[in-house]
Amino acid sequence: MSLARQEIAQQPDVIARLLERERPALRAVAAELRRRRPRYAVVAARGSSDNAARYAQHVLGRMLQLPVLLATPSLHTLYHAPPRFVDAIVIGISQSGASPDVVGVVAEGAWQGAMTVAITNDPTSPLAAAAAHVVDLGAGEERSVAATKTYTASLAAIAALAAEGDGALSDDLARLPAAIAAQLALTGAAEAAVEAAADWERLTVVGRGAHYATAFEAALKLRELAGIVSEAYSPADLLHGPIATIGPAQPLLAIAPAGPTEGSMRELVATARERGASVAAIGHDAALGDPFLELVDVPEWLGPAVAIVPAQLLAVGLSERRGIDVDAPFGLSKITMTR
Amino acid sequence: MSLARQEIAQQPDVIARLLERERPALRAVAAELRRRRPRYAVVAARGSSDNAARYAQHVLGRMLQLPVLLATPSLHTLYHAPPRFVDAIVIGISQSGASPDVVGVVAEGAWQGAMTVAITNDPTSPLAAAAAHVVDLGAGEERSVAATKTYTASLAAIAALAAEGDGALSDDLARLPAAIAAQLALTGAAEAAVEAAADWERLTVVGRGAHYATAFEAALKLRELAGIVSEAYSPADLLHGPIATIGPAQPLLAIAPAGPTEGSMRELVATARERGASVAAIGHDAALGDPFLELVDVPEWLGPAVAIVPAQLLAVGLSERRGIDVDAPFGLSKITMTR
Repeated sequence: MSLARQEIAQQPDVIARLLERERPALRAVAAELRRRRPRYAVVAARGSSDNAARYAQHVLGRMLQLPVLLATPSLHTLYHAPPRFVDAIVIGISQSGASPDVVGVVAEGAWQGAMTVAITNDPTSPLAAAAAHVVDLGAGEERSVAATKTYTASLAAIAALAAEGDGALSDDLARLPAAIAAQLALTGAAEAAVEAAADWERLTVVGRGAHYATAFEAALKLRELAGIVSEAYSPADLLHGPIATIGPAQPLLAIAPAGPTEGSMRELVATARERGASVAAIGHDAALGDPFLELVDVPEWLGPAVAIVPAQLLAVGLSERRGIDVDAPFGLSKITMTR
Repeated sequence: MSLARQEIAQQPDVIARLLERERPALRAVAAELRRRRPRYAVVAARGSSDNAARYAQHVLGRMLQLPVLLATPSLHTLYHAPPRFVDAIVIGISQSGASPDVVGVVAEGAWQGAMTVAITNDPTSPLAAAAAHVVDLGAGEERSVAATKTYTASLAAIAALAAEGDGALSDDLARLPAAIAAQLALTGAAEAAVEAAADWERLTVVGRGAHYATAFEAALKLRELAGIVSEAYSPADLLHGPIATIGPAQPLLAIAPAGPTEGSMRELVATARERGASVAAIGHDAALGDPFLELVDVPEWLGPAVAIVPAQLLAVGLSERRGIDVDAPFGLSKITMTR
């Protein structure tokens, strides 16, 4: 079995351990949040961690009413004109904790006196050293190039930040590992989807709200593992121009679970079908797409940690089917040292 | 001549008029900024205006040290969980001023007591009504579906906000209309690029810093006008996975002018060439790409308003060459009423 499949299978255990072990760290962050009452959050991240940042933008806004800004590292590293982080909480998300541009943003926040948090799989990394608070993903070494367990662990860490001190949300979160395990057990649908998607060369992935992150992460996995030219959009952004290239030659993957986003996703699916596109879906209503990847039930705000699982399995399955080296595809390397 | 070509040609005059006529409005915004000293900015926008928002993120951060957050409309319209905009300036950018999700974010900001600004081509629009300050783009009706003059006018309005009260920056800005006119005069290179790009079916566009916006807007124009499946990335985001699909089948368009971003763009171009990709470039060094679209000189921070011009001409030229209805391609409509 590939490292990627092993790491995907570890996700329920990784998250269960994380929620248990990191509770003191999360409590300390929540206490400082209550004391300092930051006006907004800055999140610095790259790659899959940047998709976790997209989830942070949704869930910290929704649960803590905290506006979240995705950092612009080039202002720090190339232009030497960092913004003022007055009354901010600055969060860096990086599996390795070694990405110089992510470390740079958090270090700048600390230097300016802002509250800082590192979410990383390496508590001895430069990112952890730069931040006042460290949430250790504790996912074990991730040896496959494609991030899987560190992505969902980052989502769980962010969800735990949003839930800290709220009994109902904490109860939701405690059920997440079992939900991911149940999702992983649905291997038949994933295998059927691999067959149905065997000829995909390019793809548009669409999601909204909580699942804007899922759309981007699914597109990234399908691209880096299976070599599919895939792009992610919200329905609104797609309708503003990119819909032009949707048609018979380019299938669409809709991230369309039940909940507040379902209505606009349904409209989008109908529009894509009118243009002649074939539509695949991840969600709860099999009428929305073929192939269809059904999701187990989970509270809507935690959906992204579950909905990415079938996309991971689809990407890995297509990679295997195409004879690609799943654990080191296309000569990619694990850590990208961009400034 | 198509409406799109007429509107592209109007850009120098539109910006010259805007800088003159909107000075009182811009002064009023700057005065309130000095008085209220917001901690961060929220920008709500869609489509090309969202690319103008990417420029705002760069230039307001760089010149005013103001961190800029791109709004998440779904929190307002679908989840009914708007973030707290305490100590924020909330800016809506919309050509029509009619996009319900953009209006919703600005109205929420106003309701919460935040400072609000509308940048719109219609001062009688709902967006203008929702905001305390209105910067009227005054670009005249834009009849082509693809935004061109309203995009560069939005960039100029944002640049003027950043420059207000600074003599050196204001002098830079005063020279912008002439620079765009000079860029428009370089029609030979644009025509040659249309021939060289005649077979492009998919494309990756890369830019960084000030030109992160340019990369996204160039990709959007090439997609909506010429039907090219084009995606935009920063070099760092591309290296985190999407580089997997760069190779002989997928050319790259590098937005690589002289300045702070040139070094990392050069490295990216070299990596793409090692993977067998053909590279086109917009910049100052003809060695960076073929076809090559040379830029006239302009202060680096204003580069995006000039660098988009050859991309507009390339997209229109390819659209014409492919027999597409330039002014209403692919059945797109001008205003997208997403919530």
